[in-house]
Amino acid sequence: MGRLGTEKVNVVSLGLEEFTPALDDTGTTYVHLDWKPPAQGKEKLTDLLFRLSLAPEDGNGQTAIERANDEAAKRIMDGQPVLIGVKPAHEVVPGMEKKTIFHAGPPVAWKDMCGPMRGAFLGALIYEGLAADYDEAEKLMDSGAISYDSNHLHDAVGPMTGLISYSMPVFVVENQTFGNRAYCTINEGIGKVMRFGANSAEVIQRLKWIEKVFAPLLDETLQKAGGVNLKNVMAQALAMGDEMHQRNVAASLNFFKQICVPFTEIIKTDPNGVEVMEFLVKKNEQFFLNLAMAGSKALADPARNIPHSTVVTAMSRNGVEFGLNISALGYEWFNAPCKMPQAMYFPGFSEKDANPDMGDSTIVECAGIGGFAMGCAPAVVNFVGAGSVSVAYDYSMKMGEITVARNANLPMPNLDFAGAATGIDIMKVVATGILPVINTGVAHRGARRRTGGGRYRHSAD
Amino acid sequence: MGRLGTEKVNVVSLGLEEFTPALDDTGTTYVHLDWKPPAQGKEKLTDLLFRLSLAPEDGNGQTAIERANDEAAKRIMDGQPVLIGVKPAHEVVPGMEKKTIFHAGPPVAWKDMCGPMRGAFLGALIYEGLAADYDEAEKLMDSGAISYDSNHLHDAVGPMTGLISYSMPVFVVENQTFGNRAYCTINEGIGKVMRFGANSAEVIQRLKWIEKVFAPLLDETLQKAGGVNLKNVMAQALAMGDEMHQRNVAASLNFFKQICVPFTEIIKTDPNGVEVMEFLVKKNEQFFLNLAMAGSKALADPARNIPHSTVVTAMSRNGVEFGLNISALGYEWFNAPCKMPQAMYFPGFSEKDANPDMGDSTIVECAGIGGFAMGCAPAVVNFVGAGSVSVAYDYSMKMGEITVARNANLPMPNLDFAGAATGIDIMKVVATGILPVINTGVAHRGARRRTGGGRYRHSAD
Repeated sequence: MGRLGTEKVNVVSLGLEEFTPALDDTGTTYVHLDWKPPAQGKEKLTDLLFRLSLAPEDGNGQTAIERANDEAAKRIMDGQPVLIGVKPAHEVVPGMEKKTIFHAGPPVAWKDMCGPMRGAFLGALIYEGLAADYDEAEKLMDSGAISYDSNHLHDAVGPMTGLISYSMPVFVVENQTFGNRAYCTINEGIGKVMRFGANSAEVIQRLKWIEKVFAPLLDETLQKAGGVNLKNVMAQALAMGDEMHQRNVAASLNFFKQICVPFTEIIKTDPNGVEVMEFLVKKNEQFFLNLAMAGSKALADPARNIPHSTVVTAMSRNGVEFGLNISALGYEWFNAPCKMPQAMYFPGFSEKDANPDMGDSTIVECAGIGGFAMGCAPAVVNFVGAGSVSVAYDYSMKMGEITVARNANLPMPNLDFAGAATGIDIMKVVATGILPVINTGVAHRGARRRTGGGRYRHSAD
Repeated sequence: MGRLGTEKVNVVSLGLEEFTPALDDTGTTYVHLDWKPPAQGKEKLTDLLFRLSLAPEDGNGQTAIERANDEAAKRIMDGQPVLIGVKPAHEVVPGMEKKTIFHAGPPVAWKDMCGPMRGAFLGALIYEGLAADYDEAEKLMDSGAISYDSNHLHDAVGPMTGLISYSMPVFVVENQTFGNRAYCTINEGIGKVMRFGANSAEVIQRLKWIEKVFAPLLDETLQKAGGVNLKNVMAQALAMGDEMHQRNVAASLNFFKQICVPFTEIIKTDPNGVEVMEFLVKKNEQFFLNLAMAGSKALADPARNIPHSTVVTAMSRNGVEFGLNISALGYEWFNAPCKMPQAMYFPGFSEKDANPDMGDSTIVECAGIGGFAMGCAPAVVNFVGAGSVSVAYDYSMKMGEITVARNANLPMPNLDFAGAATGIDIMKVVATGILPVINTGVAHRGARRRTGGGRYRHSAD
């Protein structure tokens, strides 16, 4: 619908835009209203939505669902996620044992996993010293000796394959409003990395460096700093061109700013100081992604299990299925086949080489950032295929139609300081047909067995 | 003029908007065109502009003025300003002697200077050991023993009072396209600072710390790093919420990112490493302002002295007069009384306590950033009194009407990647009546003699 200026409106055109040229011919002034029938006109869903709208109202004229959703959104917005440490997974992640692996997305059986996920599993077993090589690792998986589960069922998240194993260090984020904790691995940087399913010696070596050198130093820094409030960093980053899914340039630098003094005190006496600085500040512009994810998980979890609430508490992909959780329905997964993301490919690659979308990173959209705040990050519009900046602004505003509230504590300066759209209401998604915008346009390609760096290695690495 | 949608236009209303209500009453659809007579209808100026437009054309249909202005803008856009070191002013700034002081703005006599400027002069003489106290310093100034001049006449710029004296370390920026150099002092951070005219012991002490501790360490870092291309940092910062006059949060962090590895190598063995890190990364969000200024000066200077060019090569304020240079007219100053900036005041202060605008910082607008790129920095709109974000976008687009070109190397993501409007054409300013947007809304208050920290001390400090 065009902006109304000084013209007089004689006709309101509703629904199908095909009729408007006829009006053009008559010279009549009109506005076109972009109305669509609820649930895309699907009879069963329309009926369901109608019956839900008849739910009894309370004294304030709200239905039980509306009241529950307000509470869910309020909890997401009230949270204060504070990074309090970096610890080995087995010390902090519930249910983590020596022969346990957690992964991104809804639960999936070993035999059904996609190539990159299987590759990451083999790599993790070698990393943990449970297998000497790919063959041994594969036999171990086939034998059923390794237990595995979805990260989300263990208060954790991870990008792409999202693997967390026994020895891996994880960020420990505490929501200081509600007391819950969330965990996420440390971003490995660029190149050959396990999150894309790579599992060669180089990948394992970097993970060991993160475990032995980087994580202890960062943990010591955080203890000295007394923790870092991630919500403050998120709010600053929204004013600095990041949406914190595809772009974390400013957030990563701002995170460093918060810890730079204790960090410097520590690296002064550490022989690895220079390479740690390089890894944290220079080489890894997506460093904050994993913190945005752990922070968002810590924010979203208190909204779980609110009776009647239709708010989405998690969206996640395992490379085969996309799954989501709904507040009132706890950890029940509602799954559908994973879509292939719209992506830019390196020369010589195409969608044929690609694996469907994966990772827990879509937890950030559940907290109102990522695709929901794309208008804050015009620099990513080409990368995620949004076309022009105004499309990105429109996305961010449109997400308000499928969410419960706008978060005044996460204002979007580019959008005249409108708060981030928070609390995806699955009923509104069904009614409007507007899908959540997920900023996962990154080119991640499919698995090829035994190419280059290792079995099930990710072809892009 | 409202955006044209699908309505039919029957009337075009030109000039005065007062007539449009009459059209509203008739129900006629119309558009209002925001046309104004050139030079605001001033007869002499209109005549001058008309005669200039009759200048002979070359084979390409350009007048000599247009061709010269294209060349001026091209030079500004082609420059590559690289920070190559930090050196004592007397080693690098042309004309700097032990008893010399350079200041912001067009030249001004000691007796005519405003309070903050006089305060800074006294402080600089004490800092240099030329005077033991304010009385001695004032006598020295009155005696005429100290020579002083405008920064711009010595390839230099400085914020606010902009003082540069013999021992002060300055950034050395080399424009590697044209070979010229520009200099600027190091940003002192917040609190009691000489750029606001403060001159107490605390101010002098900080300047000495910058001279003895910070500058040598940063210079050593830069030698190790092989210099830092400031234009790259500027381009990144425009995608990260900075316009680099009022806001340099991202640029300052990005600058650190460029030098973090050699910087860490050096601070590891330096006893002052932690406080240097704190000063550079944690405590001074405007650190990059002085680099943006030196960079802009280095970019703008090659556009000087192009015959026929009406491009503005410098705008500057000394607290009494606002002055500018025009390319074809070299270092001739065209001055007018300084305006009082629109500003937010701390509680208990008002415009009565304020000093008119001052500083060389308006050099950044001559290079297309600052107020000209305000649309990149929605977070500053309230601070500079722009009202809403769309006003900031409009400012940035409108500056295209008084400039020669758009700089593709400084794209503004928020404005669909339009290049920064570059090369202010004084003829276009006169013709359109559109004034350059200068982002100097910072609350800087007037001088009060002997209040608090020193004579002529700035009352806000």
